[in-house]
Amino acid sequence: MSRACLLSIGNELLCGQTVDTNAAWLSGRLFEVGVQTISVQLVPDETAEIVEALRQAVRRADFVLVTGGLGPTDDDLTREALAEYLGVELVYHPELGEKIEAFFTSRGMTMPRSNRVQATIPQGAEPIDNPRGTAPGVLYETENTLIALMPGVPGEMKAMFENAVMPRICQRLKGPTVRSVNLRCFGAGESTIAEMLGHRMQRGRNPLVNCTVSEGIITLQIVASGSSSLEAEQVLNTEREELEKILGPLVFGSGEDTLQDVVGRLLRSQHKTLVTAESCTGGLIGKLITDVPGSSDYYICGWITYGNQAKIHQLKVPPEVIERFGAVSEATARAMAEGAAQQSGADCVISITGIAGPGGGTEQKPVGLVYIGIQDEGQCRVHRCHFANAGRASVRLRATQTALNLLRRELTI
Amino acid sequence: MSRACLLSIGNELLCGQTVDTNAAWLSGRLFEVGVQTISVQLVPDETAEIVEALRQAVRRADFVLVTGGLGPTDDDLTREALAEYLGVELVYHPELGEKIEAFFTSRGMTMPRSNRVQATIPQGAEPIDNPRGTAPGVLYETENTLIALMPGVPGEMKAMFENAVMPRICQRLKGPTVRSVNLRCFGAGESTIAEMLGHRMQRGRNPLVNCTVSEGIITLQIVASGSSSLEAEQVLNTEREELEKILGPLVFGSGEDTLQDVVGRLLRSQHKTLVTAESCTGGLIGKLITDVPGSSDYYICGWITYGNQAKIHQLKVPPEVIERFGAVSEATARAMAEGAAQQSGADCVISITGIAGPGGGTEQKPVGLVYIGIQDEGQCRVHRCHFANAGRASVRLRATQTALNLLRRELTI
Repeated sequence: MSRACLLSIGNELLCGQTVDTNAAWLSGRLFEVGVQTISVQLVPDETAEIVEALRQAVRRADFVLVTGGLGPTDDDLTREALAEYLGVELVYHPELGEKIEAFFTSRGMTMPRSNRVQATIPQGAEPIDNPRGTAPGVLYETENTLIALMPGVPGEMKAMFENAVMPRICQRLKGPTVRSVNLRCFGAGESTIAEMLGHRMQRGRNPLVNCTVSEGIITLQIVASGSSSLEAEQVLNTEREELEKILGPLVFGSGEDTLQDVVGRLLRSQHKTLVTAESCTGGLIGKLITDVPGSSDYYICGWITYGNQAKIHQLKVPPEVIERFGAVSEATARAMAEGAAQQSGADCVISITGIAGPGGGTEQKPVGLVYIGIQDEGQCRVHRCHFANAGRASVRLRATQTALNLLRRELTI
Repeated sequence: MSRACLLSIGNELLCGQTVDTNAAWLSGRLFEVGVQTISVQLVPDETAEIVEALRQAVRRADFVLVTGGLGPTDDDLTREALAEYLGVELVYHPELGEKIEAFFTSRGMTMPRSNRVQATIPQGAEPIDNPRGTAPGVLYETENTLIALMPGVPGEMKAMFENAVMPRICQRLKGPTVRSVNLRCFGAGESTIAEMLGHRMQRGRNPLVNCTVSEGIITLQIVASGSSSLEAEQVLNTEREELEKILGPLVFGSGEDTLQDVVGRLLRSQHKTLVTAESCTGGLIGKLITDVPGSSDYYICGWITYGNQAKIHQLKVPPEVIERFGAVSEATARAMAEGAAQQSGADCVISITGIAGPGGGTEQKPVGLVYIGIQDEGQCRVHRCHFANAGRASVRLRATQTALNLLRRELTI
């Protein structure tokens, strides 16, 4: 497999001002064509640092992709650093100077003198056209390595990479074809899933299975390689089927699917409508459901009945239910769901009442205790959940995801 | 100035699956106490690579902060790599094992055997408590360097850094005293604010003013240094007063304040109650308001009236208003606010109706058009806003923030 090192240049990346998203984007694009990114380094605007980073990167990688530091100001030093690393001069290219000047003219502006420096590139290197900005890129190839300098502005970088750098990379590629797919899972922890998969998660295997967790959702990425795309796809599909068999209903989707995407598709295909009745989640379920474009096809409305009076007045929860069992109880979750169904005529209801914290917990009803009502086809089941008290935001998010997952399971039985 | 190197460990960072935000957050926090981050490196889950990265980092920096690779699975190799780098064994700590087991027990789960490995740390190193998850951190100090291993999950990492790592860093700091404060702004773009501040945003100045934008909120960080903490604080306070004078009502808070924090404090101090009536934001306003612990003191309830029938039935919007002016109109926003006030008896109401996209826009009512009703003391003002069509999520977030900011302005007149 070919290897890449990425360098992201700029002081703003090293003082918390800017999150570098270029490296993740580039490594994703490289991965898709079978190039493995073995290192990403964020480097300050200092020539010596950039030269040293280039030296180490060229030693290790087939492709060295550098973003940032091509601007016109004194702290833009990437061109200079490449020239110093190569031991050559920076050469002024009149045709590049004219292009940069034309860029300003086309916008009715005069080119500041400082931009002239952007038309200088190291001797022996090739300029890359920048259709979106003033800074040309720089390409330098030897037998072993391709070095590309690109602007740090994501839009300019991406256009330049796709137009000029990616084609050159593909020309130089060696090694097998790679295919990958994501399986999205909910309902078990990372370590439980790892135990279920056992040897399948071992490193160095083909196919490879990577596991990442983000906001409670587990993504298993299957990466398969083969000598042809057909072979890689066969390896991929066999592994995918195996994983889906082992994990069963823990797998809720693929690609970038969210729980609300999947619930929405199920509701739409079954011609069912949904309403929500939320207490402790305060609107988060409604928000997630309506994150999905077109959710008005199945989502009618929601109630955020935060106080007891709101539960009584808006959802017709009998006051004696709250008095006898408390606002956080199976009976109240059930009454909320039934009230919401009656008032809206919806097919499905999600109701939630619980203690999100940090205050409000008791020994009998601690922070993290949540009752979730799921109504479908006239039947309401209430689930009692106890989420770890890992902070208010975490309890609310997990309660919401669990509710969406319970409805998904209900709709797929 | 003290120097830090940051290492972010994980294959998912090197194949485009995950953008590393930990390094930017950590470098920002370090910057606030006068520590300069000289390098950030993203390293794959391979022991040899992590060992080599540690070796280079320790050679160059006073602080080496490592995130990721502390999980229970076979590809979590950071503990192992630190032990190999130090030339020591990994030692099992029974008291850590018990804590991890207790974490599972508290969730009503049995600890998978694989999690046992998280209780092993390199000989001579110190464990760091992880109140939010299972993976303990690791701290190793010599005369010249502090090495800290922290989890990759941002919430766990941040809590651990603030509780245990930052205090140790501050004990070791050399150089001038640094003080900093954040001013939180909403209602103007980054470049407008930069123009208003002029020379105050120049680099290398004391005090320094950094500007970062996250989800529409602009944070101005003032960093002042002095030979004593008194001197640094004086420089800081003078600059803060100047900035607040220049920016006026654009500044809504300080520190980590959110718009919903500030609105909540205003409502509480004025003994007012709030309800919400949302259409296109689908519950997001309710969610943000109830993100704040104790919001039940002033937030009564909310309606998510996504469809027209819900607006008519739940909020008593007259059908002829929707027929004549449309669901996205000043008249409907007003009727929603009035209906919500009448049904709840609340002092204040936020109502929102708009076109979040991507579909549903017309020439007269394009995507991004949003009407926001703000009711206070019996008076309802409706504001017509047109947000740039930068995607559904962006339109919804900006509409919500604008609504909260309008209520804040209303309550501070």
